[in-house]
Order: sequence, then structure tokens, then C-alpha cells
Amino acid sequence: MQSYINQHKDRFIAELSDLLRIPSVSADSRHKEDVRRAAEFIRGKLRQAGADHTELCETAGHPIVYGEKMIGPDRPTVLVYGHYDVQPADPVNLWETPPFEPVIRQTRLHPDGAIFARGACDDKGQVYAHIKALEGLVAAGNLSCNVKFMIEGEEEVGSDNLGIFVRENKEKLKADVILISDTSILSNDTPSLESGLRGLSYVEVEVTGPNRDLHSGVYGGGVANPINVLCEMIASLKDADGHITIPGFYDEVVELSRAERDELAKASFDQEAYNQDLEIGDVAGEKGYTTPERTSIRPTLDVNGIWGGYTGEGAKTVLPSKACAKISMRLVPQQHPDQITELFKNHFQSIAPATVKVVVKPHHGGHPVVTPTDSVGFRAASQAFEEAWGKKPIPTRGGGSIPIVALFEKELGLKSVLMGFGLDSDAIHSPNEHFGIFNYLKGIETIALFYKHFADLQVK
Amino acid sequence: MQSYINQHKDRFIAELSDLLRIPSVSADSRHKEDVRRAAEFIRGKLRQAGADHTELCETAGHPIVYGEKMIGPDRPTVLVYGHYDVQPADPVNLWETPPFEPVIRQTRLHPDGAIFARGACDDKGQVYAHIKALEGLVAAGNLSCNVKFMIEGEEEVGSDNLGIFVRENKEKLKADVILISDTSILSNDTPSLESGLRGLSYVEVEVTGPNRDLHSGVYGGGVANPINVLCEMIASLKDADGHITIPGFYDEVVELSRAERDELAKASFDQEAYNQDLEIGDVAGEKGYTTPERTSIRPTLDVNGIWGGYTGEGAKTVLPSKACAKISMRLVPQQHPDQITELFKNHFQSIAPATVKVVVKPHHGGHPVVTPTDSVGFRAASQAFEEAWGKKPIPTRGGGSIPIVALFEKELGLKSVLMGFGLDSDAIHSPNEHFGIFNYLKGIETIALFYKHFADLQVK
Repeated sequence: MQSYINQHKDRFIAELSDLLRIPSVSADSRHKEDVRRAAEFIRGKLRQAGADHTELCETAGHPIVYGEKMIGPDRPTVLVYGHYDVQPADPVNLWETPPFEPVIRQTRLHPDGAIFARGACDDKGQVYAHIKALEGLVAAGNLSCNVKFMIEGEEEVGSDNLGIFVRENKEKLKADVILISDTSILSNDTPSLESGLRGLSYVEVEVTGPNRDLHSGVYGGGVANPINVLCEMIASLKDADGHITIPGFYDEVVELSRAERDELAKASFDQEAYNQDLEIGDVAGEKGYTTPERTSIRPTLDVNGIWGGYTGEGAKTVLPSKACAKISMRLVPQQHPDQITELFKNHFQSIAPATVKVVVKPHHGGHPVVTPTDSVGFRAASQAFEEAWGKKPIPTRGGGSIPIVALFEKELGLKSVLMGFGLDSDAIHSPNEHFGIFNYLKGIETIALFYKHFADLQVK
Repeated sequence: MQSYINQHKDRFIAELSDLLRIPSVSADSRHKEDVRRAAEFIRGKLRQAGADHTELCETAGHPIVYGEKMIGPDRPTVLVYGHYDVQPADPVNLWETPPFEPVIRQTRLHPDGAIFARGACDDKGQVYAHIKALEGLVAAGNLSCNVKFMIEGEEEVGSDNLGIFVRENKEKLKADVILISDTSILSNDTPSLESGLRGLSYVEVEVTGPNRDLHSGVYGGGVANPINVLCEMIASLKDADGHITIPGFYDEVVELSRAERDELAKASFDQEAYNQDLEIGDVAGEKGYTTPERTSIRPTLDVNGIWGGYTGEGAKTVLPSKACAKISMRLVPQQHPDQITELFKNHFQSIAPATVKVVVKPHHGGHPVVTPTDSVGFRAASQAFEEAWGKKPIPTRGGGSIPIVALFEKELGLKSVLMGFGLDSDAIHSPNEHFGIFNYLKGIETIALFYKHFADLQVK
């Protein structure tokens, strides 16, 4: 496999670049046609890689690409999930090169170069590694598993239609394990494997004061300003110890034992380097927990966006009618996203003063998940990493959410193996997103080895 | 004068509409040429009205229109000040008709119709009433004062260049009183005259956390979110009683005596109608003061704009690098805007946690002012109102700021008479700004009467 990768790597990079040029921003309706173009591209490449059946499955939103290569009913089946849609690229002005014009640049952590573009790491680069692994295995004639691909276009907007698709196609999606590359490793020297992921509850709030924008000189001091009120309400959502004040918020949280926390603490973490990388004077978070714990086994509340009043050039003395914010909460086992959203909504409305009206609109949510480290899938992935990277990967508990993973477990009865190849510093969801060329090529190799080990370990 | 107004009112309205069609937004550099067009328009109309000298005085920014009609060295001189620039029109989507396409519509408070356009009331309509008053008096041959016009194009952005112009042209601007129509009356049934105005301190703050936008799943809970931090900082600027917590903020505030407060309370005020008009469940403000007091004799702190993170369609799970806000404080005698800005800056930086960096950028400020009710100018204005409106105007203490008034007093040694004709509900600085046709025409009549009474009262 390594020699095949070496021989074709320039083409592998060129093809990924073609995919990255398509601005498949699922959240923005102006990019609807681009999203479809990305789906068509994926489908075509799956066919070229050797899939014997491919199709575009229409949904109420963006299409799902399905493809399969079946080698025999006696072989285990791996369902590969990924997404071809990407986050919006704004703020575009902070990109060093245009987000949809991929270029390769060296970075400190990627001395072999990294490909810079929106979606490079999340998730086009990682999805494309799977397609190239299939191509290599088919070309060499040593694919050891049946493979099904389900690549969606709505991961960044909540996967609502994928949920429907999964419920309606249980037979078609029958498999032994789900394999997902949409996460990261600790570093290129320290490969790691996610053994769990946080869930998500995401809401948008709107605070309305007076029925129109007012002159702050005429009304200021006498009428509650919805921006000030929103700030006060948000500030009250955490106490001085960084605990979230929503009643019932922690009720379902599974507290890890000292032994479990000690086990997680074995992954190396350099607080000083972390602060330097982010150029922050200090970290902040829930009292009594370390930074790795705060970002993995503990729930959070972050304002992801806020707006209100005059935000243009210069000064405008307006007392605005409205102020809005997008607020998300990362969840840990056994918090339920719908329940947390409901708790938030009730609490936020209860703390609103009589001077304003508050609307809380839920966006998509996602359940937290745990992947047992003793499962066949996790062990196969661990062996694949060890063989490809020369080191046994460290099991980690990820901070991000892949909401659909919990749904797979519920609807298909399958565990997911989260075998990601990005780095946390790859700036996914941020300007200058990138994916290491080393990680891309090593990912292809690791995926191919996963099939080998999974077929060996899986008792049919 | 009344018959002249009646005879020409259609033309008066048409000319004002022409002026309102020019989008002279001084804060927005894209409208630079429009601002100049408005200046040229004013200059031409002053000339047509009978000014015997007019000029466009260039500044480092937008030009100042100067014009004068001198009838004799034995006559008192009135310096008319106003501005032809306007506030930005955004949010444009909340306008019922386009902001720079004036239309006349009836409203509950303006049964004779009101002209809807950005700048209709603030301040083009009121400035234009002065030009038409001059025209009428010159046409009738009974102008009793020398008149000088100084109409600037930077009032909405701080009047910095007007300050320079005034300091450099003290001889040219010599007068006995300054007359300004840029404020409002209580209602068309209850004319009023401002005896004081609040000052202004305006700052923009930027809170920076990590050096780049982060994925809230990977970093959330471990890294301080600058939006959350900004909200906490803003929330801390007022205590539970609505007092501003900046140390020293109230040190120079002149507390009114019970008797003075009782005098101000004579102006009728209907709290119920006020709440209904704004559609608010309750008012809020500093404990121990009424709504009219909170909006006139007490200083304030309002967030005029806030922004940070993802504010587009859908959900983006970003932990942003930056969050910003525009914050203004209305000041009362004897608060000094520069001093208050400095107090704010020091306090805001002192309360910033080690997790973020804070930059505070001052915008323009303005001093609070008081116009004595026993001055010749105030008495002449009061008589003019009484004659034109059939009622003695109520002296009020305005909440808005005209920062330049304090500078006039300092540099020219002149008191300003604040003879405004708008209503508080005319939506200045808001979508759907308008100016009553009745107010416009009655304003012209009142201004003409002011000259008559001022000449009678002023001992040369």
C-alpha cells in the first residue's frame, strides 16, 4: 500500500484540491448548487476507486452520496461515514489565502506541508483519504472487507435528513462497524484514538426591548437596553467557579472516578505550550478540573455569536430594539440534548426581566457517545495506527460532537470507530483551516490497515 | 408671515424633500460626495433666501456652509447653527419606505402628515425651517436682526472640524446669541424649550481571547470565550440598583435639589402611555429617580452595538477570537467627557481577566450644557413659542447631547437657545425617521417670531 501511495500521491493531492475548490457551505442557501457539485464529485471518485454501486440519495435538503464495494457475504462489512459539506468561511478577511483556493504551505507542525482550504481537515481531506484507501486496496486486489460509504452534505447543519435516511434504509446500511474520520490525533508524534465524544445543544436567543430603535439620548437611562440585558443574562449563566447555573444542568452528568481521571491524565499535555500557541495569558474554566478535563469530560456553555445595535463604522447613539446571541452547550454522558435545550429555554426565559421579551430558538443538537476500547473496531483501529505510525495510539475523550454517532448506535445498533487524522491546531471552523500532507497520506495507509485488522479480528 | 408660509408651503415641502433625497451620511466614507452635495444644496438655498454672502468653508473633513444676511451694525446678531449630515440609515430593512426617498404619511401624532426620510427631523427639516424663515422675513422686508448661518456636515461624527473652524473664526462668528433647532418639544399640544442637555462619552471596546477563532468542541470549557467575558464585563458596569460602578463616575454630578426636581416634575408625563408606545412591560433605570429624571438629569451607560463570533444563518460552533462593543455614557453637569472616558478606560481594563486582552478606543465626546431660563435668548424663544403656538412653552432638561454647544460657550462666549420642533417619537437615529408637516411650518413661523422678540429684548 505504501508504494501505491508514494506512486500516486501527487494525483491524490491534486484530486483533493479539486474537491476543496467547491464551496460546499451547507449553512448558506446561496451555495446550494455548490453542495450538489461536491456530492457529484465524491460519487464519481467512488466509482473510479472501484465501488460497484454508487448513487446520490435525494433528501429534503442536500443529497447523501452512497457507494459500496461488496466482495462477499462471508466478509465483514464496514460502513464509512463522513461529510462533504463545510463550515462557512467567514471571517473571510482573516484567511491568508482564499478559503476555496487550496494551496500547500509548510507550518511548524507540518514540515512536509499542509493543504490550506475550508474543509481541508473537516472533513473533505479525511473523507478523501477513505476513497483513496479503497482505490489502493481494490487496485492491489487485497480488500478484505465489504465497504459501504455514506457521505452526507448536512453535517455542519445538524444532519437532520441523514437521520431520516438512516431510519429508512436500515437494511441497505447493514454493517459490522461504522468507521469515521472526522476527529484529530494529539500530534504526529503521538497518535490517539477517540473513545468518546461530547454532545451538543445549540440555541439562538433574541431579546427585544422597545418596539423600535431609540435615540439613546432621549430614552437612555429610562428604558432597559436589550444589549445590556442580554449581557447580564449571559453573565448570569455561570457562577464565579465556572459552573453553569441552569437548574438541573448537571443532573445527568456521569462523574468520572479518580481512577478514570488518572487514566485520561496519562496523555501528555503541556499547559504552557497550549497557552503560548493561543497567545493567552491564562486559561479559564470549571473549578476543580484540568484543561484536558474541561475540554472533554465536562459540559460547557459558550456564546458562539452575538449581535445587536449599530456595528458599522463610527459612532451611532442608538438604544436598539433587539439583541441576539447564538449559544451552545457541549454535553457529556448521560446528558440529553433535547432535555438540556429545554432546561436552557425555561431558565433563560425565567431570568428575563419584565423590561424585555425573550425568544429561544433551538438549533440541532447531538448526543454524547462513548466507544468501548475493548470493542473489535477500536482494537482494529488501534492496531492499524500502531503498524502505520509505529506507536500505539492513546485513547482520548474528544471535546467535539459528531451528533449523528448516537443516532447510528440507536438506529443501526452499531458502534462507531472514530479514527481521525487531523490535529487540533488545524484550525477547523476557523480561518486558515488546513490538513497535513503527512496526515493525509498516513491516513490512507492507516485506513487500509484497519480493514486488514478488522477482517482478522471480526468473527463472522 | 403666516400668509407667506401658506402661500408657499407646497414649495417649502418640495425643497425639503429634495434635500432629504441626498444621502449625506457623514459616518460612511462611501457617501463623501453626497455629503458635499448636501452642503452645496444648503448654500444655494441660503443665497436664494436672501443671504448676501455665502461660502463653503473647507475642513479636513466635510465642508461647513456659512452664510449671512447683515442688515445693520445697530441690530443684534443671531448665529444659527445646524447640521446637514445624517445618521446611517441601517437597519435599512426596517424602514417602511426607503430612507432617502421622502414620502408624506399621516401618523397618530401627525394628523396633518409627516415627511418620512433619514434626516427629516435630525436635522435637515429643522435647518431648512430656518432658511425658509429667513426667506419669508427678507421677502416681507421685516428682518429685525443680523443673521449668520453655520451649518456643518459632521455633527453625527463628533464635530471635530467645526471645533477647529470656530476657534479660527471667532471674529466672523461674532453674535449675540446662538440659535439651534435640533431638539424636540413635549408634544404639539405642549410646546417646550430645552434649558439643558446631557453630554456624551463614547467608546469602542475590543476583547481578544485566543489569537484565532477556535472550534468550541475542541477548546470549549478550557479557554475563556471573549464574548462571554465581554458580557460579564458589561454586566458588571451596573449594580442591582442601576448605578454605574465605574469608580469616580458620579463624583462631579450636580445633584438637583428637591425643589428643582419638583419644578421639572411639573411637565406632564404619562408612564403608562410611554410604556404602551414602546410596547415594554416595564421601564428600568437608576433606583430613586423617575423616568423623566433618568432621561435628563441623570447620567447613563448604554451599549449601542455589540458583535462577535458567527452571526450568519444557521449554527457555527466557533469559540471566537474577538468580541467588540460600542458603549456610550450620557453625562450631566459637571461631568467632563474626557475625564469620564478616561475613568471608563481605566476601569474596563482593570476588570479584564488575565484570559483576555482589552483595547478601549474613545470616539467623540461632548460636554453637558445648561441654558438659563432668564437669558434674553431663552425669553425671546419662549415668547415666540407662546405667540405661534398659543401656549407658553415648558422649560425641560433634554436627554440628548449636542456636544458642540459647550464649545460655543467656551470659544465664543455665547449661550445657545435650543429651540427644537421635533417630537421624541419622530424616530431620529431610527428606522422611519419623520418630521411633522405641522411642526415644519409652525417652526418657520416660530423662528421668524424669535427674531422679532430677540431684537425687542436685546439692549444693544
